[in-house]
Amino acid sequence: MNEFELITQLTRSLPTNKSVVVGPGDDCAVLDLGLPDRLLLFKTDAVVEGIHFTPDTPPEQIGHKALARCLSDIAAMAGTANSALITLALPRKFDSDRVEKIYAGMNALARRYDVAIVGGETTVNPERMLVSVALLGTVARGKCVLRSGALAGDAIYVTGELGGSLAGRHLEFEPRLAEARWLADHFSLHAMIDLSDGLAGDLRHVLKASHVGAELLATAIPVSRSARAASKAESSAKTPLLAALTDGEDFELLFTVASRDAVPLLDAWKQAFPKVKLSCIGKITSGEGITLRDQHGARKLAAHGYIHFT
Amino acid sequence: MNEFELITQLTRSLPTNKSVVVGPGDDCAVLDLGLPDRLLLFKTDAVVEGIHFTPDTPPEQIGHKALARCLSDIAAMAGTANSALITLALPRKFDSDRVEKIYAGMNALARRYDVAIVGGETTVNPERMLVSVALLGTVARGKCVLRSGALAGDAIYVTGELGGSLAGRHLEFEPRLAEARWLADHFSLHAMIDLSDGLAGDLRHVLKASHVGAELLATAIPVSRSARAASKAESSAKTPLLAALTDGEDFELLFTVASRDAVPLLDAWKQAFPKVKLSCIGKITSGEGITLRDQHGARKLAAHGYIHFT
Repeated sequence: MNEFELITQLTRSLPTNKSVVVGPGDDCAVLDLGLPDRLLLFKTDAVVEGIHFTPDTPPEQIGHKALARCLSDIAAMAGTANSALITLALPRKFDSDRVEKIYAGMNALARRYDVAIVGGETTVNPERMLVSVALLGTVARGKCVLRSGALAGDAIYVTGELGGSLAGRHLEFEPRLAEARWLADHFSLHAMIDLSDGLAGDLRHVLKASHVGAELLATAIPVSRSARAASKAESSAKTPLLAALTDGEDFELLFTVASRDAVPLLDAWKQAFPKVKLSCIGKITSGEGITLRDQHGARKLAAHGYIHFT
Repeated sequence: MNEFELITQLTRSLPTNKSVVVGPGDDCAVLDLGLPDRLLLFKTDAVVEGIHFTPDTPPEQIGHKALARCLSDIAAMAGTANSALITLALPRKFDSDRVEKIYAGMNALARRYDVAIVGGETTVNPERMLVSVALLGTVARGKCVLRSGALAGDAIYVTGELGGSLAGRHLEFEPRLAEARWLADHFSLHAMIDLSDGLAGDLRHVLKASHVGAELLATAIPVSRSARAASKAESSAKTPLLAALTDGEDFELLFTVASRDAVPLLDAWKQAFPKVKLSCIGKITSGEGITLRDQHGARKLAAHGYIHFT
């Protein structure tokens, strides 16, 4: 059983209650606790030494990444982050200076978004450090954007540029909180997700939740400079396009809007966020899966995430 | 630097915001998000293989313990639990049957207290399993009980019996949610904490937060049968009283009330919870630290937690 199969199995029979609006399976859980104008967002995310960062990663960046990943999930719901608890699992002998710098990275990011760090705990994990963040946020009632609302005919947008994140961006990205709230305030977003598994994989999560398909235009996919550089540096590397489709850890937003909103949105975005690229990369279809259109025609993308191109 | 010094250092400069009522340092963080009648409680707690459970621990009990520890912290604030996120860090090769049983233990406990499990994640921790629970709860405004309200002259109470928890209780205890809410509904509790580090250590947390001292009556401390058995079985073991003072993982409640409430409380408790022991173990003083009174007189308890008796 792999991780995805295990999660499917486990989430089949979880306890629920009357405050649950959205349970497992979206970027955050959504809870209605009776706040007059807002719903609560609830999310956890962990980074593990040797998996998400290395012993050599500057500690401030470990802290930044741990919190920024969670904030990116709040962004994907068009929410506002409120407060965080930090779980730090450490070997018995730890470098207190490194731990303080991890917190410094986390604290600086938290302050920029008015997120309170209200506690947490340190515990023992003898072989490697693990940092888990639990985050609480809110979203205005009626403004929360799920993965499940994409409709055939929608235009598909992504922010920023994709691929090659492991060259550095994954440690220093700024979560798209301001952009996501602006989008939800000014347009009717049908579906949204943050890109953590890679464009192809995460788009598939949206398609599955919305029971639709997608057609992407290869030339419209914004490929990052570092994905191009990685491709040039090594002949065995992925092509830049494949990197943009599958690299993961981009932490950009993918969202869909009705086609009639596509042009006005792009115009308004350029005024609001002149420094952040926004690309219309294709459209939602009534079919299934992802079709990629390039100069050779249209072909189906095979697996989710790490696909093989021929 | 030990864990306590590190936490003191880290919590000195954490970001806060206007929704924070209680930040780090109590059983839960307390947040005011504008709910008319209630405050939010926010807590995380992790259990680690080889530290809090062993590879042989029945998996249902691992799940039970992971969630019950967090619920016990909600109880210590006189709160009601609402929803949980579960972080499961697993070796790459894992036994999916074991994982499902961990969830079965967690789910059964969650259902008893109407707690929704609204997601979480699985991630990789190559050498050992780690289960972290993030819990959201609420408490009625004006009913939240902190560690910091103990007053000189208060009577000190503990529920249940203490010591020897590692013989089994730590894996199957029932968090005192109902008892704590009943107490807060019927009496003016000045301070409360759940016993996880041991009576002496946790009482010290209350004393420090409240700037008071305590005098305990040795004969009044309720010693568990398993603490007595452990003491008999091995001549080098702690005395039963020392076990009750320092063993940890009791997950009972310790609270203080004005002395005028001491007798009415005990009478009402016997009616409400005839099967759960409640013991008045001493009183809050205007001094510092813990004084223990027994047949030899009064003496000061030395360190916090794992003290040496002569």
